[in-house]
Amino acid sequence: MSLIASDTIGLDHGSGGRISHELTARLILPVFRNPVLETLHDGATLALGNERIAFSTDTYVVDPIVFPGGSIGDLAVNGTVNDLAMCGAVPKWLSVGLILEEGFPMADLERILSDMARAAITAGVTIVTGDTKVVPKGAADRIFINTAGIGSIPEHVHISPDRAKVGDRILLSGTIADHGVCVLANRQGMGFDVPIESDTAALNGLVQAMLDIDPDIHVLRDPTRGGLGTTLNEIAAQAAVGIRIEEEAIPIRPAVVGICELLGYDPLYLANEGKLVAVVSAASAERVLERMRNHPLGRQAACIGEVVEGHPGRVVLTTRIGGRRIVDMLSGEQLPRIC
Amino acid sequence: MSLIASDTIGLDHGSGGRISHELTARLILPVFRNPVLETLHDGATLALGNERIAFSTDTYVVDPIVFPGGSIGDLAVNGTVNDLAMCGAVPKWLSVGLILEEGFPMADLERILSDMARAAITAGVTIVTGDTKVVPKGAADRIFINTAGIGSIPEHVHISPDRAKVGDRILLSGTIADHGVCVLANRQGMGFDVPIESDTAALNGLVQAMLDIDPDIHVLRDPTRGGLGTTLNEIAAQAAVGIRIEEEAIPIRPAVVGICELLGYDPLYLANEGKLVAVVSAASAERVLERMRNHPLGRQAACIGEVVEGHPGRVVLTTRIGGRRIVDMLSGEQLPRIC
Repeated sequence: MSLIASDTIGLDHGSGGRISHELTARLILPVFRNPVLETLHDGATLALGNERIAFSTDTYVVDPIVFPGGSIGDLAVNGTVNDLAMCGAVPKWLSVGLILEEGFPMADLERILSDMARAAITAGVTIVTGDTKVVPKGAADRIFINTAGIGSIPEHVHISPDRAKVGDRILLSGTIADHGVCVLANRQGMGFDVPIESDTAALNGLVQAMLDIDPDIHVLRDPTRGGLGTTLNEIAAQAAVGIRIEEEAIPIRPAVVGICELLGYDPLYLANEGKLVAVVSAASAERVLERMRNHPLGRQAACIGEVVEGHPGRVVLTTRIGGRRIVDMLSGEQLPRIC
Repeated sequence: MSLIASDTIGLDHGSGGRISHELTARLILPVFRNPVLETLHDGATLALGNERIAFSTDTYVVDPIVFPGGSIGDLAVNGTVNDLAMCGAVPKWLSVGLILEEGFPMADLERILSDMARAAITAGVTIVTGDTKVVPKGAADRIFINTAGIGSIPEHVHISPDRAKVGDRILLSGTIADHGVCVLANRQGMGFDVPIESDTAALNGLVQAMLDIDPDIHVLRDPTRGGLGTTLNEIAAQAAVGIRIEEEAIPIRPAVVGICELLGYDPLYLANEGKLVAVVSAASAERVLERMRNHPLGRQAACIGEVVEGHPGRVVLTTRIGGRRIVDMLSGEQLPRIC
């Protein structure tokens, strides 16, 4: 008998939030049971001879396929590059699996592949193998892209989701919710005066700069689907620690706040595609933060909180007016095809 | 300006035949230009420290998703395992990217994931990382699966599509067109008296047994989309050699011949999912063939022809009645969603 309450797949199962986690925990992990998959990191860390490699995959189904700041092509390259970087790896090689709908315009395909090629060059990775499938009209919506990637983990780097320790500082590389708001606003065809661009970017250069300052960074995560709120909950749960964050310290564009209020979304749960969360020792936090701010992708980096002894597994936010509330995982919201 | 004649993607672009090759050669390779991708092998061969690895990906969109002999789950694991094995690699790790349509039955998902888990155990590989996306009803047809895989290439193995040499023998591991006929027959809802099962199987054990006999096998390929005819053309083109095959020597089930005649398909172009073509030196061909026949997946293995000096880049078939005809790449046929 299934441990999943629902008889069918719902949009929530792909949200990246609580319902996604239940699908993973109750169906996928029991079926594939193995310790590497169970680390539930952004990628797998594997030993090969004397080398350690990171291996990760993501499928992209974003709608619209082109949006201010990027396209499904940029996302597909940057997303897997970032998953490898979050393992502390130097991303090296990508595979590309395309699903195309019959009738998809060749010019659109060229544009998206060109975006992928440019993003790969920017990130310093090589697309080395691929596959293209075409399905009849109506069997898929235009284009879906899977990328998988391999990176090489330097000897001294040991990043793991369970290494967050009491006293560690939580660093965030920049403003939240830009990608989520950009995609939602453009999908709904609203004409906002203030253009919000997706933050899609490859973070491996920023990670390298941070590791140069502190090779012993404890945890790195990119808060994509499910947003910052869900990512912090995952860290708290996997390391069995409490996390305390300050609302006031979290960088966010005023226009994003405005649109979130208008649309009724909490920016803590909206996707980012060019931001990272780092958990670092208190001793090195200031120096790492300074280095982040000197990097083009970390100019607005901030220390947003710390790992605490109380409330293990929970994330508590101190609000602007001094209140405290528990930040849970994304639950029940439906934001399909955000990435 | 595009070098592709068509303005939109057609089903032929996913056939694995001539039109697929044109899309790859004229659009994808120029955009992603790099020497590893340009080898156009089943997977990429990469150097990592002192190790050599193979890296490959495939996306599965087969319809129906369950068929006699297997499911999209078996295919997705075996297909990538086989691509790695065709590089001479020992397959080790797989990633899985799922695209699910809203409303997909949970019981079907459990069945397909269980098929994947069982296939992985049989092949001796571990599923180490994955991703699940859900799209709204109508945006995809039930389930699509991408797998990517990493294998380790033993030091003495150097398999490459351009190593076919004049005088080499062409070995085929068993009957052709079983998978293609099985899927087509079941999709069209015909009730054939003679059940044809898909041949989906992991070939890495067979490859290992063959390499134990001859570590210097020149070329290995699995004739999937586009079938045996297309695969032999690819070998002939990449090694710039002629290939001569004997129709009578090609193993094929009588029921498959019958159904192909009925449906109007040439079995040379139908997909196989558990067969391989090996190009080996004349000196070791007999011993390799004998070893294949002693393996459960090679019982009907046969020497079907040889590499010849004449007609470089072309495949010539001697028919049962002694005629000769050129076997071209699959061209213009539409067999969507065969794998």
